[in-house]
Amino acid sequence: MMHDKGLVIVLSGFSGAGKGTIMKHLLEAHPNDYNLSISATTRGMRAGEKDGREYFFKTREEFDDMIRNNELLEYATFNGNSYGTPRAYVEQLIERRKDVILEIEIQGALQVKEMYPDALLLFTMPPSAKELENRLVGRGTETPEVIAQRLAISCKESQYMEQYDYLIVNDSLERAVDQVHNIIQAEHFKVSRNTKAINDMKNELKVFERSN
Amino acid sequence: MMHDKGLVIVLSGFSGAGKGTIMKHLLEAHPNDYNLSISATTRGMRAGEKDGREYFFKTREEFDDMIRNNELLEYATFNGNSYGTPRAYVEQLIERRKDVILEIEIQGALQVKEMYPDALLLFTMPPSAKELENRLVGRGTETPEVIAQRLAISCKESQYMEQYDYLIVNDSLERAVDQVHNIIQAEHFKVSRNTKAINDMKNELKVFERSN
Repeated sequence: MMHDKGLVIVLSGFSGAGKGTIMKHLLEAHPNDYNLSISATTRGMRAGEKDGREYFFKTREEFDDMIRNNELLEYATFNGNSYGTPRAYVEQLIERRKDVILEIEIQGALQVKEMYPDALLLFTMPPSAKELENRLVGRGTETPEVIAQRLAISCKESQYMEQYDYLIVNDSLERAVDQVHNIIQAEHFKVSRNTKAINDMKNELKVFERSN
Repeated sequence: MMHDKGLVIVLSGFSGAGKGTIMKHLLEAHPNDYNLSISATTRGMRAGEKDGREYFFKTREEFDDMIRNNELLEYATFNGNSYGTPRAYVEQLIERRKDVILEIEIQGALQVKEMYPDALLLFTMPPSAKELENRLVGRGTETPEVIAQRLAISCKESQYMEQYDYLIVNDSLERAVDQVHNIIQAEHFKVSRNTKAINDMKNELKVFERSN
């Protein structure tokens, strides 16, 4: 069965929920099934990075033009640098029935859903808030103040969980990766994503129609 | 993660689409995951049948009482015999977080969805109308007139396909069984089916809330 289009999949979740790790393992386990969306950014290119691989590197002017021309599915600014998802790259892939995954923050995820209601929104979280705190502390890279800030942000972000489609509790990495894969694959069979197959069948059946 | 409740799953499709075979193989492959709903019927018990195994056998009066008392999730009459799905049996199972599968006709499926909007409706069809015809002819058990009637019914029924949630094209039995299993399992991770886990997380995160 040929579904109508590829899927736009958004993976997000609390800082510390492990979405980057899930993503990495998902792409390694299923390299032919998924395409990673590449963001545009105004931040400078770092050593070892390549334009069009890690990011599409843009000047501030170019980036602002993309916003004005509605060329970004979502964008946000962190520490003075802007990041956004180029619409053309995503749309070219889904027209060719390729699934594209965006790993973005919650505000960006909601922007994508507004622009593109068919997008599949996945929310990752650890089994408990205590565990979220433990993971942030366990990294040993952030000060207690930064950790407290992150948890306060998670508290705010939790108000938007109901706007997502699926919830993935990341208690075992392997299981979480399998769940994400199964959810995406099952989604291809949604009736609303197979209008062509349905209309073909309806038309074919018309030769058997009876008036009575 | 504990989802809120078990699922009510309805598998239906055109006559000849192979839903009975999919069902049989699904239950064999995953005996602990699914429970088959047992219908009530007014038809007489046949040799080898047992009350509460193949069917709950009821008198016409008992069956009509069940309808009046809203004890059936759906019912229909074929050749003078009535068949219906007892609500209590289904609801007891889903409260215990067990998934229940109903293999019923399309009109019944739509009744269940109305009574129980959370039900998961799966529609099975062969890859083409021609293949549907071939399968009915290939059985060698029905007259051309009966086959023509069935195909005319399928044509009518195809108008309701959009009311289903998922479409399964039964071109390979093994693949169709896997797809049904994956769709049901993925469905457990729907945000709308995990309100308890979400509310627990929101409450736990409140200790980290900041006023600014």
